[in-house]
Amino acid sequence: MSELSRFQPLDAGAIPRFAGTSTFMRLPAATPAEVDIALVGVPFDGGTTNRTGARHGPREIRNQSSLCRRVHHASLTSPFDLLRVADCGDAPVNPVDKDASLASIALFFEDIRKNGARPLTAGGDHLVTLPILRGLHKGYPRALIHFDAHTDTYDEIFGTKYNHGTPFRRAVEEGLLDPKRMIQIGLRGAISHATNYDWARDVGIRLIFIEELRERGLADVMAEAKALAGADETYVSFDIDVIDPAFAPGTGTPEIGGITSFEAQSLVRMLSGVNIVGADIVEVSPPLDPSGLTALTGATMIFELLCVMAETMNAQKSGRAPLDV
Amino acid sequence: MSELSRFQPLDAGAIPRFAGTSTFMRLPAATPAEVDIALVGVPFDGGTTNRTGARHGPREIRNQSSLCRRVHHASLTSPFDLLRVADCGDAPVNPVDKDASLASIALFFEDIRKNGARPLTAGGDHLVTLPILRGLHKGYPRALIHFDAHTDTYDEIFGTKYNHGTPFRRAVEEGLLDPKRMIQIGLRGAISHATNYDWARDVGIRLIFIEELRERGLADVMAEAKALAGADETYVSFDIDVIDPAFAPGTGTPEIGGITSFEAQSLVRMLSGVNIVGADIVEVSPPLDPSGLTALTGATMIFELLCVMAETMNAQKSGRAPLDV
Amino acid sequence: MSELSRFQPLDAGAIPRFAGTSTFMRLPAATPAEVDIALVGVPFDGGTTNRTGARHGPREIRNQSSLCRRVHHASLTSPFDLLRVADCGDAPVNPVDKDASLASIALFFEDIRKNGARPLTAGGDHLVTLPILRGLHKGYPRALIHFDAHTDTYDEIFGTKYNHGTPFRRAVEEGLLDPKRMIQIGLRGAISHATNYDWARDVGIRLIFIEELRERGLADVMAEAKALAGADETYVSFDIDVIDPAFAPGTGTPEIGGITSFEAQSLVRMLSGVNIVGADIVEVSPPLDPSGLTALTGATMIFELLCVMAETMNAQKSGRAPLDV
Amino acid sequence: MSELSRFQPLDAGAIPRFAGTSTFMRLPAATPAEVDIALVGVPFDGGTTNRTGARHGPREIRNQSSLCRRVHHASLTSPFDLLRVADCGDAPVNPVDKDASLASIALFFEDIRKNGARPLTAGGDHLVTLPILRGLHKGYPRALIHFDAHTDTYDEIFGTKYNHGTPFRRAVEEGLLDPKRMIQIGLRGAISHATNYDWARDVGIRLIFIEELRERGLADVMAEAKALAGADETYVSFDIDVIDPAFAPGTGTPEIGGITSFEAQSLVRMLSGVNIVGADIVEVSPPLDPSGLTALTGATMIFELLCVMAETMNAQKSGRAPLDV
Amino acid sequence: MSELSRFQPLDAGAIPRFAGTSTFMRLPAATPAEVDIALVGVPFDGGTTNRTGARHGPREIRNQSSLCRRVHHASLTSPFDLLRVADCGDAPVNPVDKDASLASIALFFEDIRKNGARPLTAGGDHLVTLPILRGLHKGYPRALIHFDAHTDTYDEIFGTKYNHGTPFRRAVEEGLLDPKRMIQIGLRGAISHATNYDWARDVGIRLIFIEELRERGLADVMAEAKALAGADETYVSFDIDVIDPAFAPGTGTPEIGGITSFEAQSLVRMLSGVNIVGADIVEVSPPLDPSGLTALTGATMIFELLCVMAETMNAQKSGRAPLDV
Amino acid sequence: MSELSRFQPLDAGAIPRFAGTSTFMRLPAATPAEVDIALVGVPFDGGTTNRTGARHGPREIRNQSSLCRRVHHASLTSPFDLLRVADCGDAPVNPVDKDASLASIALFFEDIRKNGARPLTAGGDHLVTLPILRGLHKGYPRALIHFDAHTDTYDEIFGTKYNHGTPFRRAVEEGLLDPKRMIQIGLRGAISHATNYDWARDVGIRLIFIEELRERGLADVMAEAKALAGADETYVSFDIDVIDPAFAPGTGTPEIGGITSFEAQSLVRMLSGVNIVGADIVEVSPPLDPSGLTALTGATMIFELLCVMAETMNAQKSGRAPLDV
Repeated sequence: MSELSRFQPLDAGAIPRFAGTSTFMRLPAATPAEVDIALVGVPFDGGTTNRTGARHGPREIRNQSSLCRRVHHASLTSPFDLLRVADCGDAPVNPVDKDASLASIALFFEDIRKNGARPLTAGGDHLVTLPILRGLHKGYPRALIHFDAHTDTYDEIFGTKYNHGTPFRRAVEEGLLDPKRMIQIGLRGAISHATNYDWARDVGIRLIFIEELRERGLADVMAEAKALAGADETYVSFDIDVIDPAFAPGTGTPEIGGITSFEAQSLVRMLSGVNIVGADIVEVSPPLDPSGLTALTGATMIFELLCVMAETMNAQKSGRAPLDV
Repeated sequence: MSELSRFQPLDAGAIPRFAGTSTFMRLPAATPAEVDIALVGVPFDGGTTNRTGARHGPREIRNQSSLCRRVHHASLTSPFDLLRVADCGDAPVNPVDKDASLASIALFFEDIRKNGARPLTAGGDHLVTLPILRGLHKGYPRALIHFDAHTDTYDEIFGTKYNHGTPFRRAVEEGLLDPKRMIQIGLRGAISHATNYDWARDVGIRLIFIEELRERGLADVMAEAKALAGADETYVSFDIDVIDPAFAPGTGTPEIGGITSFEAQSLVRMLSGVNIVGADIVEVSPPLDPSGLTALTGATMIFELLCVMAETMNAQKSGRAPLDV
Repeated sequence: MSELSRFQPLDAGAIPRFAGTSTFMRLPAATPAEVDIALVGVPFDGGTTNRTGARHGPREIRNQSSLCRRVHHASLTSPFDLLRVADCGDAPVNPVDKDASLASIALFFEDIRKNGARPLTAGGDHLVTLPILRGLHKGYPRALIHFDAHTDTYDEIFGTKYNHGTPFRRAVEEGLLDPKRMIQIGLRGAISHATNYDWARDVGIRLIFIEELRERGLADVMAEAKALAGADETYVSFDIDVIDPAFAPGTGTPEIGGITSFEAQSLVRMLSGVNIVGADIVEVSPPLDPSGLTALTGATMIFELLCVMAETMNAQKSGRAPLDV
Repeated sequence: MSELSRFQPLDAGAIPRFAGTSTFMRLPAATPAEVDIALVGVPFDGGTTNRTGARHGPREIRNQSSLCRRVHHASLTSPFDLLRVADCGDAPVNPVDKDASLASIALFFEDIRKNGARPLTAGGDHLVTLPILRGLHKGYPRALIHFDAHTDTYDEIFGTKYNHGTPFRRAVEEGLLDPKRMIQIGLRGAISHATNYDWARDVGIRLIFIEELRERGLADVMAEAKALAGADETYVSFDIDVIDPAFAPGTGTPEIGGITSFEAQSLVRMLSGVNIVGADIVEVSPPLDPSGLTALTGATMIFELLCVMAETMNAQKSGRAPLDV
Repeated sequence: MSELSRFQPLDAGAIPRFAGTSTFMRLPAATPAEVDIALVGVPFDGGTTNRTGARHGPREIRNQSSLCRRVHHASLTSPFDLLRVADCGDAPVNPVDKDASLASIALFFEDIRKNGARPLTAGGDHLVTLPILRGLHKGYPRALIHFDAHTDTYDEIFGTKYNHGTPFRRAVEEGLLDPKRMIQIGLRGAISHATNYDWARDVGIRLIFIEELRERGLADVMAEAKALAGADETYVSFDIDVIDPAFAPGTGTPEIGGITSFEAQSLVRMLSGVNIVGADIVEVSPPLDPSGLTALTGATMIFELLCVMAETMNAQKSGRAPLDV
Repeated sequence: MSELSRFQPLDAGAIPRFAGTSTFMRLPAATPAEVDIALVGVPFDGGTTNRTGARHGPREIRNQSSLCRRVHHASLTSPFDLLRVADCGDAPVNPVDKDASLASIALFFEDIRKNGARPLTAGGDHLVTLPILRGLHKGYPRALIHFDAHTDTYDEIFGTKYNHGTPFRRAVEEGLLDPKRMIQIGLRGAISHATNYDWARDVGIRLIFIEELRERGLADVMAEAKALAGADETYVSFDIDVIDPAFAPGTGTPEIGGITSFEAQSLVRMLSGVNIVGADIVEVSPPLDPSGLTALTGATMIFELLCVMAETMNAQKSGRAPLDV
């Protein structure tokens, strides 16, 4: 346990939550080589086709994460007592050069992978998931559990292949993800053409619309998701816009009629046992929410993800073969 | 289909959503004579007894409607492929003369009716529904499906017969609506006197409080509503305050404890098959919601209404007798 | 009834809701000796460990309470026709002296008690419940029904025994509350240590987490709460953060995943019949919610509490032995 | 001096500024018959042709006036030690009936006049100055010193004679004001037609544009204003939009390039010695300024006006013939 | 004059300012071939290195320009009575492809030039001035009068030559501007290195810091600017951040200590007589200013520029050789 | 110079300003022993009698300071090339124990003093200046140059000697400051009693009201201030409310009619040559300014103070006797 003592959040009963510089969860800074789970940011929104601002997501999520505490009230999981977790900084990005940013982000995550840590990321727009997956790639396609209002499987928008509406199509094409083990949950919102879902269905991605989610219930859908993922390394991508804009207004492409934040928390908690190789929370755009609620929601969802990742990784560490990331 | 090519929204994959002048749904402007459904605004709030701002509703709903897309994700209805829909502008109003405005609004909608189009309107406060109904009147009372936190059936407020708390009483008195085929859904919020509901009940209006709505479920209530309306031309009025202020804070008389926007969408989708002769979304007050979420909700609800109107009108057009508006 | 004529809200059909000086519910001012229920404020937030602002709660709740009306739409309870209710002002406080404030607040509520009135209070942070209970104390511990995201039963924070995280531990220690008849409903949010709930459980406080609340349903939980309270005088404390921050963002320690305002209203309505000796709404922090929605929610919850208090007190007054407060 | 003891603001060193119900300057309520200067509100904006909200001005100015203190820092004038000043409430208005409101406002001010008090008013839009002048009328036209970005001397807008762009033309026509002793200071902003200033110049109103004000300096212009007014009873009307919107953004018709709030204070202080028979601050629209700065500015300007009114009235009372209002 | 009747703003005394779709100044839409001055937007902010949002500038400036009127209050210039002015729409842009956007913007302005119109543009970030100048280029470098807090003459930022910190260096290098006839007014704010101004000074650009501007006075500096420009075609670029953020907070790189909006208006009015071949207002970022004041300031500055352009162009048209753009 | 290489801000041309964790000026963290000037925060507002929030000042000033650059545009001073400057963290505070906080803050600054560094502090409310002065005390009273709207020399408020209205009276009484060498600049705003200034004048403090400042001009007043301070170690305290709330709205006790931010910068620049032993910027309350402008102004003023401190300290270091702090 003494190995973990370096990786503890500041004590909020001694140092007020409003004091000091804000890191993720008030954790110390560290390098990927030192930790099991690397909390990182990708402050890039150069893939955004309409309302930007997600580049400010990591900083404001860090700021709001000062409100987070140590132990999950329902599962009683205490991630900082199980694993080494720290703030490993932001991926290098270039706000005026998308191609350069895609490259530098991928390298940053490749470094995390090579150091044996698993990344839990605050975006950035959804395009950043593509270079994250590239950096984490180990030569075979992975499973994906994806929460979102949108499929983000367009081929092109504005004649470009790389923007926040296309990452999952690119990831399938590049062999980073296995479409047969991809599930997208919470889809809704009008679409541009009746054929918009065709490609995803053709390649075998499982689409769960909000209507199906409500009809079947969260547990049934998550059972399906976990069955799809199996025991393999699975990536989890959580677009904040899957949550209704009443709960998370600060996002670029809001769609009314979404899930509540309680439902969002429930969905993530059901991921317990999934072998999460990395996860992200994207599309938090602080300039669109002066109240800070969206970033607080993002921070809380990171804590939820952290707990389920820690549960599984701890089980793997103690009882089973070492984790090969 | 070529007739429809003139009435298409701008292509958001080529012209960004933030570009250009904002019309409803990024549609072209047109006259009522050219269209099947006329998207119009009534920027008037001179009937408001407390917090104003609904006069700014049409412009901000137009602005936020840039986020709307073409095809409904659940029904796959594509209204612009079925009917001619355009932005037919705003009714003339006089912000400092209520009587003059009531007259000019009625004439504007009479013109729409005479041109064979059906109006889908962004208000304005709820008083505007009265001159709309006058303009659409054809000599006999119509059915009404009405979503609201309030009945708006006062006799007088401040000694005046014409304000945003009285339109449905006036409409019944003037023979514009048939109280026996009127249903008001989502009612809640404290009232001024225990007798406030008496008149409505006495004349036969069906009142569905939020408690009944939640107990019976949305589908059961909507079945009753559709039975009441039957095959006759029915007007639909949607006061944004039926939705909880967490989802739609920008309104003058908010009542906590309302429906979610997902429920609002569900209710409207169940209107499919109703012979909607006109519809409105009222009481969106942009100055009371700097985030724009209320206007976005209003715009999305217009899209939902547009889809169900297009479904029915298209069915009428293809299979049955021509529509006699 | 003529005794009640002095204690009526302004007529909103004659004097606009935006006119005049704002008292609670637009009621007249009065002294505790003149009323049955005293609406009061405690503008103190000196117990707040992180984000302050609850000192501004009473004024803004008064302001937003101008939107409240007279008769409950579901129960048709009309409190101002049953009992004498008035705005009895604010407890004296000293914003830069916590000890002095705890003393002066207690005296203020002792005076209310001695005058035979029951207080319905707008806070202030949650520390203010401690001096309220001291002022209402009659020598034996009372039951408590407590709605909150947090237990507020810490022993110390920052080395101090008196802050907004400790009032219920102090109240038990001081014999003001009987832990065996205390129930806390809506708990959630990560905690600082896995042992945080131990003391509360050891002394017998019933903890209802949000998960249990949702699983069992509101009615079942409230039946348990009412059974715990029995016929004895019971205090009700409502921390606005039990409600999800989407519905009530203006609070210092928001926790996502809370109840809706409709659920909050339902919970309070089920208190009908409980012998409420006093109640409060705390932790409304207006500077954190420029929209005013949180204060409106606070005002509406005060009206809900007023209705159930009036129902019981009226029954006691008419049918049973006089109320001995 | 004991007569004044009843009319003192609350002591902010004992009762915090955020506590209690907000009256103007934390003064007691009183009737016009009891005071020398009546602080009143006119919560009416039914004359507004574009952005409304001034109906909420009086309440929010009262709220912000809690920040005001007792003694002017530069003149050391202490109005509450010189005269009886109190909050005399709001004029009755009807938010949906302009004609009725014009009548009831005039009666309210006639009552103030007949009781020998002088009104210092928080509006409301600028149309309210017309019924104020009617109520204060004593059979002969008065002088006017008017601070504004606009002349408000249109003949008609939207075909109506009574709106917030016409009050001073009506007042001249009705013999309430003497155009030869009217001066309008701070004018700027594009106009609708090149002839817009013709009527005002033809009847002899002195127009001081912002450019002339800056070139000549404030003192020189105010000397001219005071010469125009002479010793006669003079009305002062202060439209908050004379101040630049950086300093006072919450107003319906902002014009950039205005005076600073320091300049506004300086102008009003130079009114010392003018026989001010009444004064108003209008067009503060709180919904357009969530920060409260505009209302704070309005409240501070009321304090500045109060000081100069008190200086003159006190001099009149002590040394000269009794004041005949 | 009848030629001009088509190009008039809507009559705000008949159609309220809040009604209808918002074009620049409520003017009709037209093509460049039909007008003398083309009001256009460039909704592009892909050159922004820190806080984005200027892509939303054109729409919100159009929205706020509804408050503009027809005739300048000081000069009495009435541009719509002198020249054909209309809203000629937005330049095509691609939000996720900077290079494509630079090309399409240049073509858009080349078309304006070839049609003989002069553009008055709402940006967009400052990078858009580069393609505007390319589109307006006629083979020789032009003079520039530039208002800004920053010189925007960096060589590279983030290793890229094309971003909003470099346009004027590129324009000089490309021969679009003559550095000896360039003047930058209002400079201030800390810099990255002591050598930051060297290049600009070396090539001969005249730098006027805020300190020099205040010491010499506006008129003296503008006389120098006009002498530099002479009678030649001159481009005017106005970065909104030259104005203090108190007056124009909605911009990506605010620098405190700037000029007032009154001073900004004065500076532009002194441009009368300059042969302005095109002008822009850039860096208005509406998401950073929910109040709308910055966009209102942008709209008013466009009106100021329109007046001085119209004065000179009208003089050229009437008295001298036809304008050869 | 290599000693300084460790103490450089992040390069904003390589790492975007929105990336990473925010320290003051994007500087590295360090201990007082390592630096010449320690940038620190004191997140305490327990001395605030009305509107709180200054406890959040240090974090938000750090956040906004990401916009600061390295070299002063007018003086060309480059502080990071002259001295070792770093972020030395926040003083320990206890948000619910004022006495404990006063003690721990004093110790924090005593440590800075003993390590030979000079502190440049972001508050916190103005009470924090008292423990800062205690910590920096060396046995004799120091000179003070104080910018503020208020004198903060009350004896007691709410019966307490220690609050944000009393620090300078306590500091004189404790011998920390020499009243004959104290000057307070920018005073304005109504006062509670006509005698409020008596104590300050009696002990010899020089009071400069805003009126005198404007009449004499900034340079003349600052010459007097520098003459008062002489060559001795002088403390500089800058209350953000000396600036007009249009420029810095986020503060607890705003007074309209203040100085501009340009004037604030000018005043501080004139401090060059003063032997500043420590300085602070207090009363920035971020919750009262969601735009961030007040914190940006605070950050910029810190940079201005840093430059003048660096100029003098560098001169002392190079030419004269070593600095004895």
